[in-house]
Amino acid sequence: MSAKLTILGFNSAIPTVNSSPTAQLLEMGERLFLIDCGEGTQVQMRRAKAKFSKINHIFISHLHGDHCFGLPGLISSFRLLGRETPLHIYGPKGIKEMLETIFRLSETNKGFELVYHELTSKKSELIFEDNKVEVFTIPLDHRIYCNGYLFKEKPKDRHLNMQEIVKYPEIETCDYHLLKKGKDFVLSDGFVLKNENLTKDPNPSVSYAFCSDTRYNESIIPIIEGVDVLYHEATFLHELKEMADFTGHTTALEAATIAQKAKVGKLILGHFSNRYLDVSVFKKEAEPIFAPTYLPKVLEVVTI
Amino acid sequence: MSAKLTILGFNSAIPTVNSSPTAQLLEMGERLFLIDCGEGTQVQMRRAKAKFSKINHIFISHLHGDHCFGLPGLISSFRLLGRETPLHIYGPKGIKEMLETIFRLSETNKGFELVYHELTSKKSELIFEDNKVEVFTIPLDHRIYCNGYLFKEKPKDRHLNMQEIVKYPEIETCDYHLLKKGKDFVLSDGFVLKNENLTKDPNPSVSYAFCSDTRYNESIIPIIEGVDVLYHEATFLHELKEMADFTGHTTALEAATIAQKAKVGKLILGHFSNRYLDVSVFKKEAEPIFAPTYLPKVLEVVTI
Repeated sequence: MSAKLTILGFNSAIPTVNSSPTAQLLEMGERLFLIDCGEGTQVQMRRAKAKFSKINHIFISHLHGDHCFGLPGLISSFRLLGRETPLHIYGPKGIKEMLETIFRLSETNKGFELVYHELTSKKSELIFEDNKVEVFTIPLDHRIYCNGYLFKEKPKDRHLNMQEIVKYPEIETCDYHLLKKGKDFVLSDGFVLKNENLTKDPNPSVSYAFCSDTRYNESIIPIIEGVDVLYHEATFLHELKEMADFTGHTTALEAATIAQKAKVGKLILGHFSNRYLDVSVFKKEAEPIFAPTYLPKVLEVVTI
Repeated sequence: MSAKLTILGFNSAIPTVNSSPTAQLLEMGERLFLIDCGEGTQVQMRRAKAKFSKINHIFISHLHGDHCFGLPGLISSFRLLGRETPLHIYGPKGIKEMLETIFRLSETNKGFELVYHELTSKKSELIFEDNKVEVFTIPLDHRIYCNGYLFKEKPKDRHLNMQEIVKYPEIETCDYHLLKKGKDFVLSDGFVLKNENLTKDPNPSVSYAFCSDTRYNESIIPIIEGVDVLYHEATFLHELKEMADFTGHTTALEAATIAQKAKVGKLILGHFSNRYLDVSVFKKEAEPIFAPTYLPKVLEVVTI
């Protein structure tokens, strides 16, 4: 199975009637991950018909309001919906104090466990792993401590080549598990059947990198190299490069340069400044450097 | 000028695609007051085409999320819109700690002054006054410290009766101010012209009471007696009276009883539990007790 990315919002700063701040849902492996959670995210999740109960892991890039002010309300709604399973929250150190202060003062009895994974490292680290997916941080360069996140499917099981397998009555159903994992099969006479003759290549494992907010930062390239899809912020056009540096953001030209140097499959831009009424200018600036550049649409589902 | 109430949201608890949590705008005197601020209020304000810069006073009833989780985002947007004038926030003790913790951790430099008016009294008190309007607290009985707010226009200037005034050349333009305030005029021969002969009654002063969230609480009746419009929460129908008491809420029948006993002009119900898909049942339950009962519509403007 491939991964599915739902763009819940991609605007910077001020929410408006037709735009929502950053939030994405990523369905990968058997998980539904929420990435960033600006104000109004829970309503966008309803519009996307997301299964609230399927979300057990939330990844917050940084503590600016347009990336996390939807969290207290979402967590309150989880409680009101009768949630009992723990919720894991990954984000910068301070996220626990922020949320727990709010819940203490609003006398909110959460009714389920919030498991905080507070991040402080400036190096990429593995922060989540199950049998299908790994998540790594992507240290970014913003005005405030900030991480992007790299989601990688682990290698998948090989497909059984039944046409070959049936030729060897010695191979039983209980052996299939090891064949799928790539093991050779040793017949009772000592003859080795090579795995590549008994199986076919697995479905490809996909990867997704989320990078917002950051200045142009080549040090992320080795981390995100070759990902299938890269979401990279592009708050400004390059004519406002100075403003981008000052505010800790990237231009469309720079985001495309990162995508091109990291040899990613596809680039999605976002986090556009409200000053641009027509965001097609971002695509126009990026495309000459990196052709497979896309602009997101709200509630669009991108198959990875 | 009368007052104008805009209902930005009136639902309880969980925001959905078609409903927003509690928030209202009240235009009275020369002021635009924001009352409560659930998540998504700033977007509702945009839908209502509200002038953000005209809001200098925000009144928060209590610290449950559906009444205040829109505040951090709204204040951040004020900053991004270049606000410089102070913003006054009235609410329960704790609101300052909640907001200041959020802004410290998100490293938000507000750029304008937040003036906190933290409330702790269990008695009604005058908390705001200018030359046209007074605002009093209405102590409510919820699970957590909670106030409603009573907004009262001060008596307005009397209208000049020019047909009479022109008969007395001694009365000059500079005297009009005192006439409007109700003063008699003394002619140079000592003869007293009664004000009621020189002026006509002023436009009526209107009043509005906002009461959410609370159990049935007759002690508010003397405070809200005779107001033109009462907004009173009605989270449940009376068949769930026990649930209402347990959760600190009112039934539609009880809200109507309060309105009837307080002899208000008009009752607006709100804060309906999500369990009721058809909210007309609230009006049906309240009307036999208090006929001028209304259900709010989102973004409806009520003239008071």
